[in-house]
Amino acid sequence: MAVTHDTHSGNRKIIGSSVDRVDARAKVTGSAAYAEDLMPEKYLTAMVLHSTVAHANVVKIDISKALEVKGVVDIVTCFDVPDLPFPTAGHPWSTEKKHQDIADRLLLNRHVRFYGDDIAAVVAENDIACKHALKLIEVEYEELPHVFDAQEAAQDGAPLIHPERTDTNVLVHSSYDVGDYDEAIKEPGLVKIERNYQTPIVQHCHIEGVNSFAYEEQGKMVCVSSTQIPHIVRRVCSQATGLPMGDIRIIKPYIGGGFGNKQDVLTEPLNIFLSKRLGGRCVKLFYTREEVFVSTRVRHAMNFRLTSWVRKDGTFAARKVLVYSNQGAYASHAHALAANAVNAYRMMYPYSAIHGDAYTVYTNLPTAGAMRAYGIPQIGFALESHIDDICDEMGFDRIEFRLKNMMKIGYRDPQTTITCHSTGLAECIRKGAEFSDFLRKQKTYGKGQTGPVRRGIGMGIFCYKTGVYPISLETSACRMVLNQDGSIQLQMGATEIGQGADTVFAQMAAEELGFSFNRVHILSTQDTDVTPFDTGAYASRQTYVSGMAVKKTARKMKSEILAYASTMIHKDPGDLDIEDDMVVHVGSREPLIAVSEVAMEACYSLTNSKHIAAEETHHCTDNTYSFGVCFAEVEVDIPMAQIQVLNIVNVHDSGTIINTKTASGQVHGGMSMGLGYALSERIIIDEKTGRVLNNNLLDYKLMTSMDTPELHDLFVETDDPTGPFGNKSLGEPPVIPVAPAIRNAVKNATGVAIDANPLYPERLFHAFKEAGLIGE
Amino acid sequence: MAVTHDTHSGNRKIIGSSVDRVDARAKVTGSAAYAEDLMPEKYLTAMVLHSTVAHANVVKIDISKALEVKGVVDIVTCFDVPDLPFPTAGHPWSTEKKHQDIADRLLLNRHVRFYGDDIAAVVAENDIACKHALKLIEVEYEELPHVFDAQEAAQDGAPLIHPERTDTNVLVHSSYDVGDYDEAIKEPGLVKIERNYQTPIVQHCHIEGVNSFAYEEQGKMVCVSSTQIPHIVRRVCSQATGLPMGDIRIIKPYIGGGFGNKQDVLTEPLNIFLSKRLGGRCVKLFYTREEVFVSTRVRHAMNFRLTSWVRKDGTFAARKVLVYSNQGAYASHAHALAANAVNAYRMMYPYSAIHGDAYTVYTNLPTAGAMRAYGIPQIGFALESHIDDICDEMGFDRIEFRLKNMMKIGYRDPQTTITCHSTGLAECIRKGAEFSDFLRKQKTYGKGQTGPVRRGIGMGIFCYKTGVYPISLETSACRMVLNQDGSIQLQMGATEIGQGADTVFAQMAAEELGFSFNRVHILSTQDTDVTPFDTGAYASRQTYVSGMAVKKTARKMKSEILAYASTMIHKDPGDLDIEDDMVVHVGSREPLIAVSEVAMEACYSLTNSKHIAAEETHHCTDNTYSFGVCFAEVEVDIPMAQIQVLNIVNVHDSGTIINTKTASGQVHGGMSMGLGYALSERIIIDEKTGRVLNNNLLDYKLMTSMDTPELHDLFVETDDPTGPFGNKSLGEPPVIPVAPAIRNAVKNATGVAIDANPLYPERLFHAFKEAGLIGE
Repeated sequence: MAVTHDTHSGNRKIIGSSVDRVDARAKVTGSAAYAEDLMPEKYLTAMVLHSTVAHANVVKIDISKALEVKGVVDIVTCFDVPDLPFPTAGHPWSTEKKHQDIADRLLLNRHVRFYGDDIAAVVAENDIACKHALKLIEVEYEELPHVFDAQEAAQDGAPLIHPERTDTNVLVHSSYDVGDYDEAIKEPGLVKIERNYQTPIVQHCHIEGVNSFAYEEQGKMVCVSSTQIPHIVRRVCSQATGLPMGDIRIIKPYIGGGFGNKQDVLTEPLNIFLSKRLGGRCVKLFYTREEVFVSTRVRHAMNFRLTSWVRKDGTFAARKVLVYSNQGAYASHAHALAANAVNAYRMMYPYSAIHGDAYTVYTNLPTAGAMRAYGIPQIGFALESHIDDICDEMGFDRIEFRLKNMMKIGYRDPQTTITCHSTGLAECIRKGAEFSDFLRKQKTYGKGQTGPVRRGIGMGIFCYKTGVYPISLETSACRMVLNQDGSIQLQMGATEIGQGADTVFAQMAAEELGFSFNRVHILSTQDTDVTPFDTGAYASRQTYVSGMAVKKTARKMKSEILAYASTMIHKDPGDLDIEDDMVVHVGSREPLIAVSEVAMEACYSLTNSKHIAAEETHHCTDNTYSFGVCFAEVEVDIPMAQIQVLNIVNVHDSGTIINTKTASGQVHGGMSMGLGYALSERIIIDEKTGRVLNNNLLDYKLMTSMDTPELHDLFVETDDPTGPFGNKSLGEPPVIPVAPAIRNAVKNATGVAIDANPLYPERLFHAFKEAGLIGE
Repeated sequence: MAVTHDTHSGNRKIIGSSVDRVDARAKVTGSAAYAEDLMPEKYLTAMVLHSTVAHANVVKIDISKALEVKGVVDIVTCFDVPDLPFPTAGHPWSTEKKHQDIADRLLLNRHVRFYGDDIAAVVAENDIACKHALKLIEVEYEELPHVFDAQEAAQDGAPLIHPERTDTNVLVHSSYDVGDYDEAIKEPGLVKIERNYQTPIVQHCHIEGVNSFAYEEQGKMVCVSSTQIPHIVRRVCSQATGLPMGDIRIIKPYIGGGFGNKQDVLTEPLNIFLSKRLGGRCVKLFYTREEVFVSTRVRHAMNFRLTSWVRKDGTFAARKVLVYSNQGAYASHAHALAANAVNAYRMMYPYSAIHGDAYTVYTNLPTAGAMRAYGIPQIGFALESHIDDICDEMGFDRIEFRLKNMMKIGYRDPQTTITCHSTGLAECIRKGAEFSDFLRKQKTYGKGQTGPVRRGIGMGIFCYKTGVYPISLETSACRMVLNQDGSIQLQMGATEIGQGADTVFAQMAAEELGFSFNRVHILSTQDTDVTPFDTGAYASRQTYVSGMAVKKTARKMKSEILAYASTMIHKDPGDLDIEDDMVVHVGSREPLIAVSEVAMEACYSLTNSKHIAAEETHHCTDNTYSFGVCFAEVEVDIPMAQIQVLNIVNVHDSGTIINTKTASGQVHGGMSMGLGYALSERIIIDEKTGRVLNNNLLDYKLMTSMDTPELHDLFVETDDPTGPFGNKSLGEPPVIPVAPAIRNAVKNATGVAIDANPLYPERLFHAFKEAGLIGE
């Protein structure tokens, strides 16, 4: 679906053009090197022994038989690791202790907290020896009672999962008030609507696994890792191993997706520890798909209770959210996700009294962490389902109700101070409704259908902050180096993880410099030894935060080029600009000298040789909101308990679109993930043992191309005054509105409101049966 | 031999300390990765077909049989390459055409100019297929008359080797005059002494071969190469292939020696061309030792005629040098070596009228290029032999004569303007003479011996410019990045090639920053995409030129750290300094805050996050002279025509010694190379065919540890005002004075003056026979 441009700023040449991804050819031809492609010829293989109980103390580990396996080089157990608790979240460090991430795990854990916890590691000369030895390790557990449900775990008397830290499993309970909720609900004539909603545990399912290898080079421990956050990984590896940060080097090559799972520090600290023990020999630690499912990170399951007090005129008097977020065994990103969810609850419909309560609770389940949109898909499902339920119950028009109550321009969030500098949401809704013929179809479908196969149409909207300021630090650096042919190298701390970041950074640099796009060579690899600092890919922050670092650095670079050119052509640098790779007069645009000629002279001048480079930090102290909507039309086969998505469209306001082609790609990817969240994806856990039963891509029902309808995307371009080029976040948001839109469409088709996703056949069957749509 | 420090400057803590090499552990344990270690798992092998005639036109190449070999992927001949002549010398580019290096070759050559020229290349899936196919290629030559001797080749009517360029084989004939030679020789009472001296073709014999591999990555052609000059290689590959410079990336890993051979662009352009033809697949092009001997570069053979007009008081009235330098088939560094030789002739004994004439001549021999000390070992052998001959003939004391006539402080060279800012040469001579008991022994030996085994002692001095300014551009850049632990990464464009450059750069950075040595992490790999510009390792320039870039960058980095610290501790940055990793008060030296604390705050500050880095260019516009002397004592077995070196010492004035341990290492390496040049090393060429007969380490007589006496080194430290830390060049000079010292010692022992090196047994036998020391 072609992108339409509703607004456009200035005389931009490259921003907004649909250039091919800079890595398209490399990825298509296979020349793009991922971690595994960079392995040296000789290396050792490490594998982790994971616990087979959900909650226990390891009493004893007998490695004697395993050590006898030919080819085994080293075995490390939870009794051998340093007592240096470390956090794993991909957050910027805080120099204030109270804001630091929770350091609640060791490299290997004696106190086993979930079925899949890390308790020992084998290093061997080959995979077969490694696997064989793993099987021969004998572990003696002292089992402890376990708890899997977040609300149960929050109760007094529940088995304590981190007794070394606190006497409760509640990591954090936070609450907020906007206005006076208790007072507001006293208003006469209000209708109270209260419902519970649930979201499941899902997994990221990035194509490339969680892979790293480590070795020593010139006194440094080097770890090549498939990560989103190389600079953060370096810091955490230092905390976990006790090595100084400068003695650690993290290299991030091309990576095959992350979706937030690789915004955690996963295999790297143990990997470095194992290599270091072996004198710096190269050790690889690649997780199998089964390990990725269980022993990395998952999306938090959340249970919501939403309470709305609605006036007859279709406005809110008061709203309340209560959430229990299931953290699993270790803190990882901890409460940040639940906080993000209840904040988004507030921001979506901000004009009433609001009370929020959020509990993040340790359980004996796999650790939950960041995943695309960081808590918002959860609240998005709950809230947009709830809005639909209110409209149904009170007879409001779904679109009018949302338009009336949603965030308007100029809104300043009372908790975070984040201000709405631009919004195209109303236009997004108009455009999406028109595209999907929503107004007509929702009436045509509605309650009039009687057959076994019925159609429905639904919608969901969202708002999404761009980056993490002011909740956390937003900082990014960029370096540019002028080549003698007048092209530049662009080095970012920000990471390309498949989302297309490198392409848009290169566009930004070319635009700001006045260069042709092909004169910008971006380095895709991040290497903490040479890459400027950036916290990495998360929070859809990079085009907004790191993009400004590109812009600032390009300005510096341009001024350096012009200053040098001015000495060659004897003009005031203030009279000069660059356009189409030429130094031009700033007013007349007359070409004066080629940048390439300036570059050659600057490098090789016998009188004034200067190697032009520029490096700048952008410390971002602003934020803004992106918006969007999904409209979905479905056909429900009631007896078969199956949903077919007939038509689906996402419409986004992400400010100026830097690259229409890659933007569409991001939206399609998010929609695909949203479809899985809506229809099929969930981690199934054995209720007795806590074991993940579907830890593989056969049993875990990810959407395939066969399951996926044609994906439509539209944009409403705003020009956000705080974005480097008017742009706002786009990476994560597309996943958010899909599941509620489909849930609401199913309700439109069948009258059945299902308050938990995904809508997989068994759940539909029970719901339809309960509603009387399927007989005995 | 321990180093003595005669002078020392200031309160330096790290400069002058004998720290271990930063790469010692990596090299000893084998973790240091050389080009071959970095090869990916899958690659294609390329091999070059070299000509088997010395001079011919290739009429036809039949590759049909070769193409049938299973595994052969591609065959390229001299008929397939672009018509883009390119130079290969490792010189900085000149933007003025007349100063550019001579572009006289293509990737493969139809006009074959020496036995070993490159005429075709095979790419195959494995080495065996590649070798097999090479043998099946049928080449039809139209043979041309050849010429091997430089003087013959300079004559009219000699076979023209580059008729496409000029109608003579003389690349350049240059001459200079200091004073009026013709007038000066008219002075009454002068003694004219005139002799011819010859030096042989030798090869560098670096341990690691000439190795590269190339592949495409994200639209760039990447070449990993064992080179001294990555940034120059990039430029030349651009010239040779027509690709823009920014589309080429050269990576230089650890390399196993170069000695100037890798100051030429060797396999890289063809390697990139071959990979590019194959869609960017990885292609390796590793030369065998045999190819390295013949088809890379060798040291120029030079024939000298030296004429001296000497006064009875032991001073010169006039001096004259005529040199023919045998360039071989291609220009490479061309006339720069002969010019360097005749310039050094002038500088050594500068106080008289001097006339210089130098011819650099193409011949049908392997191409000569840069080799340690770049023409000076040649003139050094000739001139210091000549000085000894003058002393003998006229009865002057060898030391007194040199002291009287050699360069003194304040000398300003009339041609180059290079000024003598410091000299410890007189002290070097005193110290070396004392160490070797020269005064007593030269008399004891002298002519009094009669038996078959006689002893002698000899000496040779030298002066050596530091870098290439003002003859050529001297420019270098450096980047430093502050880590959050208060350590830095140090990135140099200058290259570690085994000489210890990385260690001294790290020392310089630590010294200037006030850091502990282990807080400086230098990156040994140069990568033109991220490495600051530097022309590379040659001319013993790096500690002098690039060292100043380190110093300037460290000052910038320090000022950035102090500026940030001043905001934390509320002091004026001008009141602050850094010492022992602490920010201190500049006067009282009171410690105020740790650099590591400043670094953490700068990175993670919520109010002022700044990623501190510094990058500076040093455009060097100065030069100075290093000096030294060798004293060698030998025992000559006349009937066996064999020389045993009994005692040898080099004494060097290289300004301040940055690292006494690595400095000694450099001197020992140079002395070893000088011993080979004196005694055994020479390329033997078949007189009829021009084929190199000893293209391997069995037949080419390199000095082994068994041949090498204990090597003694001493230093006289001066504090040169133009060096970054008072230092001057040291890398190349140690090779220079050894051969003449030994030649003069043999004369001292036997009375026989041999005017060509090396003094191998056959040559000695004939000389002793001619002198009547060996009978019929």
